[in-house]
Amino acid sequence: MTELLGKPVGDSINESLKGTIADLEGKGIVPTLAVVRVGAREDDLAYERGIKKKFSDMNCQVTVVELPEDVSQEDLDETVKALDNDSEIHGILLFRPLPKHLTDKNIVNTISSGKDVDCMGNANMAKLFAGDKDGFAPCTAQAVMEMISYYGIETKGKKITVIGRSLVIGKPVALMLIGANATVTVCHTKTADLKAECQAADIIVAAAGVAKMVTSDFVRPGQIVLDVGMNVDEEGKLCGDVDFAGVSETVDSITPVPRGVGSVTTSVLLKNTVTNASRTIL
Amino acid sequence: MTELLGKPVGDSINESLKGTIADLEGKGIVPTLAVVRVGAREDDLAYERGIKKKFSDMNCQVTVVELPEDVSQEDLDETVKALDNDSEIHGILLFRPLPKHLTDKNIVNTISSGKDVDCMGNANMAKLFAGDKDGFAPCTAQAVMEMISYYGIETKGKKITVIGRSLVIGKPVALMLIGANATVTVCHTKTADLKAECQAADIIVAAAGVAKMVTSDFVRPGQIVLDVGMNVDEEGKLCGDVDFAGVSETVDSITPVPRGVGSVTTSVLLKNTVTNASRTIL
Repeated sequence: MTELLGKPVGDSINESLKGTIADLEGKGIVPTLAVVRVGAREDDLAYERGIKKKFSDMNCQVTVVELPEDVSQEDLDETVKALDNDSEIHGILLFRPLPKHLTDKNIVNTISSGKDVDCMGNANMAKLFAGDKDGFAPCTAQAVMEMISYYGIETKGKKITVIGRSLVIGKPVALMLIGANATVTVCHTKTADLKAECQAADIIVAAAGVAKMVTSDFVRPGQIVLDVGMNVDEEGKLCGDVDFAGVSETVDSITPVPRGVGSVTTSVLLKNTVTNASRTIL
Repeated sequence: MTELLGKPVGDSINESLKGTIADLEGKGIVPTLAVVRVGAREDDLAYERGIKKKFSDMNCQVTVVELPEDVSQEDLDETVKALDNDSEIHGILLFRPLPKHLTDKNIVNTISSGKDVDCMGNANMAKLFAGDKDGFAPCTAQAVMEMISYYGIETKGKKITVIGRSLVIGKPVALMLIGANATVTVCHTKTADLKAECQAADIIVAAAGVAKMVTSDFVRPGQIVLDVGMNVDEEGKLCGDVDFAGVSETVDSITPVPRGVGSVTTSVLLKNTVTNASRTIL
């Protein structure tokens, strides 16, 4: 069994960005991501720390705008609009879900598509749907594609079962895999025989958000398992959607959680931010 | 074997619109679709005739704007913009593909989403992707969903194989079926074993654009086959992607071509146009 780690993938992305970041620096531009956070949820803070470290390591910048838990819709909207109009900001990430009295429905579409580095708005979603690679996909979905590319995993003609149909992972990754010539089956809570759908696949992408739901009886030798889950198990430890201990005994290769797909996400966020910053000097 | 005809489905849609159309008429509003046609391709003209008849039968209107084959991009863009600004136009349909010197890339996004009755632009595509039912899906993809609804075909937990990954049918219908709780597999030219994918399905949606490619050995008893193909066979006759003669002997129910899914498309176009017109009086 081969463990497909995220670190070399993230490193490779970072490496590919160094030249561009240096060029930008020479022109006085520091690629800058604005993070808009409402309140201070622990998982938002953890993600924010990861983003800050990655950007700082690469001589890029993160501007965190923290808004109080009870911020008004108007103030939130104005904040995001101001960031969109700020030429020194190259990407905007709004942490979601928002508190219940707020909606992101309109605001995500006021962000220009170039700054929409996590595919929150219509323009990038439509590009994703249309297979137009000019746009940015949701970072975690893109991280799956980066893993596939880095490890030279063949997708053409392969049967891939995607577990989950969310807007941020399941659906976008399914569309990108279809674009990569895979035969893709999208499964979810209403799927009648998930075990059979997993057994039939060459590659399984688990993005259900349910701890350790893919167990050893779901898999067979020769398969590749990409685990996008990020859950906490009964012992309070971080775990994926796949029961790693059981499944890793059978399959050909598998991404661990943590240290797998999730660790590539911040590199994709950096890549998208740098890509948009570099467009300003074209 | 039950033949699933399009006519009763279209009739049922039309019937459901009569009240709204009468209400609008009482307020002096006639739901009006603008068709923008560049040149005079025979299949465009045939579709146009079908649309005109359907709208006229329902006391609605079609305005055809015919542009010469060599129209400039600027003139085409201006034409569409003017229609978008015209308050007496409730829907806009641009026949595609356009001649090679023209692109629809920008123009489809200048059409306001309410008038984009065939889901050509980003806003409706993004809504489709997000599962937001406020938007309009591509008419033929929606026609498949109308067939499923009219004939009471259960989708929840069913295995559905979609053949084709186009932007106008394959991908949108797959997303809508996922939203309808089906386990959806998207197949295409790179699929390794299309026959097995079809055999494994409860429902097959054929949208490959290849005449009679789904043959009797692809199917088994109990299945439902929805044929979205619109091709011409070796004898010059209209036919679907399914070899009707062979397949219909085996499966439980099947849509014929012609007189199947395709005949519902113009009713969906009418429905979308009337829906948008009715928003003007809210």
